[in-house]
Amino acid sequence: MNGPKMNGAESLVRTLVASGVEVCFTNPGTSEMHFVAALDHVEGMRCVLGLFEGVVTGMADGYARMADKPASTLLHLGPGLGNGIANLHNAKKAFTPIVNIVGEHATYHIKYDAPLTSDIEGIARPVSGWVKTSGSAKDVAADGAAAVAASMGPPGQIATLILPANTAWDESDGPAAPVAPAARPGPDANAVKAAAEALMSGKETLIHMTGDALRADLLEIAGRIQTKTGCRLSCMTSNGRWQRGAGRVAIERIQYPVDIALKQLESVKNLVLLGTKVPVAFFAYPDKPSVLIPDGCNVVELADIADDHRAVLTALCDELDAWGCEPKLQEAKKPDLITGGAITPDSVAAALGRFIPENAIIADESVTSGRGFMPYTQGSAPHDWLSLTGGAIGIGMPYATGAAIACPDRKVICTEGDGSGMYTLQALWTQAREGCDVVNVIFANRSYAILRHELTNVGALNPGRKAIDMLTLDRPALDWVALAKGMGVDGVRVDDADGFNKALARAVEEPGPHLIEAVM
Amino acid sequence: MNGPKMNGAESLVRTLVASGVEVCFTNPGTSEMHFVAALDHVEGMRCVLGLFEGVVTGMADGYARMADKPASTLLHLGPGLGNGIANLHNAKKAFTPIVNIVGEHATYHIKYDAPLTSDIEGIARPVSGWVKTSGSAKDVAADGAAAVAASMGPPGQIATLILPANTAWDESDGPAAPVAPAARPGPDANAVKAAAEALMSGKETLIHMTGDALRADLLEIAGRIQTKTGCRLSCMTSNGRWQRGAGRVAIERIQYPVDIALKQLESVKNLVLLGTKVPVAFFAYPDKPSVLIPDGCNVVELADIADDHRAVLTALCDELDAWGCEPKLQEAKKPDLITGGAITPDSVAAALGRFIPENAIIADESVTSGRGFMPYTQGSAPHDWLSLTGGAIGIGMPYATGAAIACPDRKVICTEGDGSGMYTLQALWTQAREGCDVVNVIFANRSYAILRHELTNVGALNPGRKAIDMLTLDRPALDWVALAKGMGVDGVRVDDADGFNKALARAVEEPGPHLIEAVM
Repeated sequence: MNGPKMNGAESLVRTLVASGVEVCFTNPGTSEMHFVAALDHVEGMRCVLGLFEGVVTGMADGYARMADKPASTLLHLGPGLGNGIANLHNAKKAFTPIVNIVGEHATYHIKYDAPLTSDIEGIARPVSGWVKTSGSAKDVAADGAAAVAASMGPPGQIATLILPANTAWDESDGPAAPVAPAARPGPDANAVKAAAEALMSGKETLIHMTGDALRADLLEIAGRIQTKTGCRLSCMTSNGRWQRGAGRVAIERIQYPVDIALKQLESVKNLVLLGTKVPVAFFAYPDKPSVLIPDGCNVVELADIADDHRAVLTALCDELDAWGCEPKLQEAKKPDLITGGAITPDSVAAALGRFIPENAIIADESVTSGRGFMPYTQGSAPHDWLSLTGGAIGIGMPYATGAAIACPDRKVICTEGDGSGMYTLQALWTQAREGCDVVNVIFANRSYAILRHELTNVGALNPGRKAIDMLTLDRPALDWVALAKGMGVDGVRVDDADGFNKALARAVEEPGPHLIEAVM
Repeated sequence: MNGPKMNGAESLVRTLVASGVEVCFTNPGTSEMHFVAALDHVEGMRCVLGLFEGVVTGMADGYARMADKPASTLLHLGPGLGNGIANLHNAKKAFTPIVNIVGEHATYHIKYDAPLTSDIEGIARPVSGWVKTSGSAKDVAADGAAAVAASMGPPGQIATLILPANTAWDESDGPAAPVAPAARPGPDANAVKAAAEALMSGKETLIHMTGDALRADLLEIAGRIQTKTGCRLSCMTSNGRWQRGAGRVAIERIQYPVDIALKQLESVKNLVLLGTKVPVAFFAYPDKPSVLIPDGCNVVELADIADDHRAVLTALCDELDAWGCEPKLQEAKKPDLITGGAITPDSVAAALGRFIPENAIIADESVTSGRGFMPYTQGSAPHDWLSLTGGAIGIGMPYATGAAIACPDRKVICTEGDGSGMYTLQALWTQAREGCDVVNVIFANRSYAILRHELTNVGALNPGRKAIDMLTLDRPALDWVALAKGMGVDGVRVDDADGFNKALARAVEEPGPHLIEAVM
């Protein structure tokens, strides 16, 4: 190599920056110290510390959903990666690109089975689409460029690069050139034809979408098709990112409760899948079906999640000659506040619908309390809605934080259950450190409320004290204002609807972070 | 089957209870609801809820280290297990028996790839010695009995039983009979002879021990051998459980810093391994060795961790005819308090040494601040010392909690770094709920102090702001008293040695839980 010497860590950091990776969410340990040192003196990579790895991976997910490009994470060997698994699972199900850099013992040290030795590749594989352990400092840069490309898929996925300490500190051959990600496949002509036929059949047809089909401009194309054909449009219960609100094409969300979802789908004769699969129940229940569409429903697989949804919708719009049909856009319509009395899911939803500011990001993890949010917020100021895609609770405050890092000029509102929030409450500290403009709304129902329902759903009736104790958080009650204070975030507790309405209105106006504990 | 109908979940709970499993540390979800219902109406299993799975697995580790038998955990599918991986890694390295019960989708539902679907066996395998997915409700009870036996090893290990929801709710054939664990191998006569020869060689000989060789009665046998032969006795840097203090045989701990460990071992001519391996560096460092014993040191593998250490030490004592040699017992000797001025590692160690009550349990995770604890506590009241065996930080407060559940009549003192404590702070809530008699001492040095040293150790000199920021917790400073209050635990902040001494003296006298934030 020419020029000054450069170790493997620095060659990797320079490669990541050249590949467009601008943020590293970190929770480093000893084996990552050379990488930390390289981050320190290479320009172009912002470093954001999380005090727990589940916060780190959740931030990376939220960041990439909003930035449309991967962040890197820096994690400490197998246990550090292990702590990040749950939110990587959510990111995997959202098809979010993430590049994990995971430290490992020096190659020659692994055989001694020191305390931190573990099967890092084994831990990575269940959540990663791409896993590699660098063999030498000479390989690290090229491996890094390959990892970034792999993370972009299509579709987006988790790429985990494991970096033995000596590959970081030994001499490299310098940075590697960026690798272009694979192109997204275009429309399949037969599938487009089949979808068009279904849509023109005169029978009830539903286009069921996710991925970037839920961006405002693609929804507008779907809206033209809807106007032309009279079809219904829906998205999954949980989607990586969904642009909605006033001025956008409103679509239905297939709901989580099986009985409601069955009702939503019972009249559908043609189901057109755009990046989705046939809707199934989140969990199996005795005596309830797994598959939620009616018998005999005709299914057309229009596009895979990996495909170029813009090109697919364009081709379908061409086929239907629908460009002249104006999409029906959601009118601006903010709900009235519900005042007086206790905080209820409806009063919260009304306040949210009223106060969501222009271009806000809703990072939602209000598993139980938030089910009624959709109708109240449909005509709110336009916003992006992020959902819990993998069902691994504990992503709300982390992905709110990552979204705020990606979009510092946009307000983020995190709607969070108290049970879910406790898994990754350390995110509040990063919000305070980085000055993230996030309003964290904690629904303090003081229980795993969803499980109270589920205990009945699975047929376990008349639970006793021991079961109830495992589903309640009220002994002792969590004090979220104290928890927030402990991490440098201002909080307020409210226990009636008027108090909540006022607190939300104020928090939306003031730069964050803030926390509102809504006692329900 | 005869008698009333019983579902798979109940057959499993009854089998676990019959197999001697008395506690279930839980963080359940929907797929575990039948198991929760069964726990509810079967007598004999105490249920302890943790608000994060790393707390659950760390509690199970602390419980089993003190109870000498496995607890069960109840975890929610792959992500729930993932959150528990880091502390399962520590338990694995401590050879702690744990039986994980992990929920899974109903067998017929897995193929639909619902959001929570993941490769649970893949996530389990890196930390588990035994993994099985039950195939039907008829198998669950026998699988449960096999899991308990597998967890007992020898040596102890993690047994993970994955329970598809329908195997819990379908009809079973009733409970299964307990399965006896495999016997621990007895002494190898040739190894005993070789060890005896080394010990009688007149050259410096070190018996390096871990596992139950560190229980008081076994240490007494080692002490007789020491008196007979003049050998040295040592244990690993981190051991699952070490009985020490006044009236016990004191042994050396091989230290974490490589340079100190090399000095401790440089004169050793014969190394006798009792449940240990040849000491190696915790991490590799450029220009430092991985193996810490001198060239030419004669190594005798006396016993594996799985072997019956009592029988092995007995055989060695026989071989050496050492039963008549009195072991040298540690005299009672409490250090003087260090008063005036700031809180320092020495002032804390002196206070700890002075105030450790009779028969206390020290759950130590004071990675940096606690290195000097050993000399100050050697002559304290007799106690059990638990250490971070796998290097996955975030076990301190969880294993303190589990130890308190196992030993409700003993005081537990958790010595915890602020950085480490933040990974699993939710343990404080369980301490409050269960009324655990734990004093949590948080060393608030407001940094990942160990990494400040390590950054220098790996040769990364003159770190800049970006690197320092990734290793410090002072922007904002954590307020541990507020965090504890948020979870129902009384806390106090002290910032000088006198204040700390008084706070510790008081907390040791009063039933817990308590938290002391020691600002350093």
